[in-house]
Amino acid sequence: MRLSDISTPALVLDRAALDRNIRRMAAFFADGPCRLRPHFKAHKTPAIARRQLAAGSCSGLTCATVGEAEIVSAFCDDILIANEVIGADRCGRVAAVARALRGRRGVAVTVAVDSPTGIDQLAAAARAADSVIGVLVDVDVGQNRCGVTSADAALDLARRAMTHDGLALRGVMGYEGHVQPIRERTSREEAARQAMTALVAVAGRLRGAGLPCDIVSAGGTGTFDVSGRVSGVTEIQAGSYALMDTDYDGVGVPFEQAFWVLGTVVSRPAADRCVADCGHKSATKDHGVPVVHGVPGATITALNDEHAVIALPVDSQLRVGDRVRLVPSHVDPTANLHDVFFVIDGDAVVETWPIEARGYPEHRARR
Amino acid sequence: MRLSDISTPALVLDRAALDRNIRRMAAFFADGPCRLRPHFKAHKTPAIARRQLAAGSCSGLTCATVGEAEIVSAFCDDILIANEVIGADRCGRVAAVARALRGRRGVAVTVAVDSPTGIDQLAAAARAADSVIGVLVDVDVGQNRCGVTSADAALDLARRAMTHDGLALRGVMGYEGHVQPIRERTSREEAARQAMTALVAVAGRLRGAGLPCDIVSAGGTGTFDVSGRVSGVTEIQAGSYALMDTDYDGVGVPFEQAFWVLGTVVSRPAADRCVADCGHKSATKDHGVPVVHGVPGATITALNDEHAVIALPVDSQLRVGDRVRLVPSHVDPTANLHDVFFVIDGDAVVETWPIEARGYPEHRARR
Repeated sequence: MRLSDISTPALVLDRAALDRNIRRMAAFFADGPCRLRPHFKAHKTPAIARRQLAAGSCSGLTCATVGEAEIVSAFCDDILIANEVIGADRCGRVAAVARALRGRRGVAVTVAVDSPTGIDQLAAAARAADSVIGVLVDVDVGQNRCGVTSADAALDLARRAMTHDGLALRGVMGYEGHVQPIRERTSREEAARQAMTALVAVAGRLRGAGLPCDIVSAGGTGTFDVSGRVSGVTEIQAGSYALMDTDYDGVGVPFEQAFWVLGTVVSRPAADRCVADCGHKSATKDHGVPVVHGVPGATITALNDEHAVIALPVDSQLRVGDRVRLVPSHVDPTANLHDVFFVIDGDAVVETWPIEARGYPEHRARR
Repeated sequence: MRLSDISTPALVLDRAALDRNIRRMAAFFADGPCRLRPHFKAHKTPAIARRQLAAGSCSGLTCATVGEAEIVSAFCDDILIANEVIGADRCGRVAAVARALRGRRGVAVTVAVDSPTGIDQLAAAARAADSVIGVLVDVDVGQNRCGVTSADAALDLARRAMTHDGLALRGVMGYEGHVQPIRERTSREEAARQAMTALVAVAGRLRGAGLPCDIVSAGGTGTFDVSGRVSGVTEIQAGSYALMDTDYDGVGVPFEQAFWVLGTVVSRPAADRCVADCGHKSATKDHGVPVVHGVPGATITALNDEHAVIALPVDSQLRVGDRVRLVPSHVDPTANLHDVFFVIDGDAVVETWPIEARGYPEHRARR
């Protein structure tokens, strides 16, 4: 199969570029006390996660949802769900994964908690399944999303977790999501250090109270080389680095673009404009419209459901039927729109990798 | 199964509200010469399309992609792909659908064309499959996307189509997409009439040249009752009316919200804020962030991949574990994120309807 045989729109992935990104990130964490916990949410693709683990320097994988954790449990036995899990059904599914992996490692699944309800529901599920679920107290380090807003509240939750047999308190987590997109390097470094200092201080409060706190988990692709060097931070949850997007390219991190949306020009109604079949059902625009790759002067002026409207220099040779590649602005939600990556080596399609955790896998059984 | 048993995030659909919307639209077209051709792209769900056809007043269905057409061909024998189809593979798939449906009706599949390449590729595919593909010349009526930009160009393409045995020229199409979102009624009416006048004039040019032009296809949910009353327009391609969204609600069309994203509150870290598990991987924000349904004073302040951050009145009783419903801003790409609609009647889940054409069905075989 060749590139030209792929029905568009489709995701194409340069395996060599992916592997360079993976190796570069693994090398950064190879010598430090801090480990890497690649975030599965960015690509939802087991074939990519396996390569990330195989490259070394990893403490395990990070997931955003229970559905993702269920899928990675086929090949990973230290899973962090870096998110609050609420509801008897979902806590029960976490406990089932923990039970299935038990024996391969002490605590196989760890979940972020920021409420008594969350702790008690996880504990009840663990008890019912006769399993053990790890917990990290989620601390708001400035993002103003989830997470407790004071060290005292963190201490209260940690103590509550310790009262439950089915839970293993493993430490704290704090995602400096507000820092990731800061373009100016010095400001980004300063904001990341400030956030991590606050998180490490909470970890110190837990230890001072005699509570276990082996894990201090944080970070992302925009801060891995700052947060990952703050003393006391034990692991970094980065995901976008593997495939990249225009947003993180603008931040200036040392990774290369490794995937694109492949489209076909379906209309060239005017000399200064063409339309391709890759709209925002194929590449989201929540971080801006994609960039057209390799066509000098081409700019997307509108991204509709099924159409990318592209302004062209009037002497552009782009014709109806030609292929175009878009560089997405945001990898995570773009990968989530597709079922497979077409893995390319030059013009050859060498593999297809299922995006197994796309959407909500628990609902697919109902189709 | 009850509403509370659904794993969130998920799409829930009020069947009674859907049926009222479908009946209201069918009634509008019941007495006029203009017909309705419901757009499948809005929901990609056969169970909904079947109800639209069963309600009457329809000339067939509209699709945006070949993948959608393949799915609706199981129950519809007059399909318009209101979009340019380019590439030997995809034109071949159109011809295969046309061939499979042949005999049930004269021309089963019709495609928009705006280039000689598009015409010639469809003709070659029709010839190879020994089938007939209908074509509509796509006319740019002001959207500046696809479509020829002059009546002369339309005439040239129509004549070219007539030279091919495998093609049946059926008329013209012009989507006034730029008019749909105009909030002010008088301005919207005026702009729609202007666009339709231009389109009907092109149809007149074709007929004046002795060319067949039975179909003049246009319109959407924002203009159905204006464009659908312009003399000479024969059918309206509306889709969003069945399920609705905040964007069309703002336009002021007479349909009711019939679906929501169901989420769970997973964090209430502060009195004035909670976080639900329904981010923009479950409800897109290309037309703005969703609206929280039925919670007075609740406003989404950030919609991240997996999180909706919701500002609350400090005395709000919303707690961790409570369910919330979001009204999406844009139905089409939101439905495209999910695999099923959970069909509800009050608190009971009475059916689940697969969103069969979600994503790119032709790639799913490769998973």
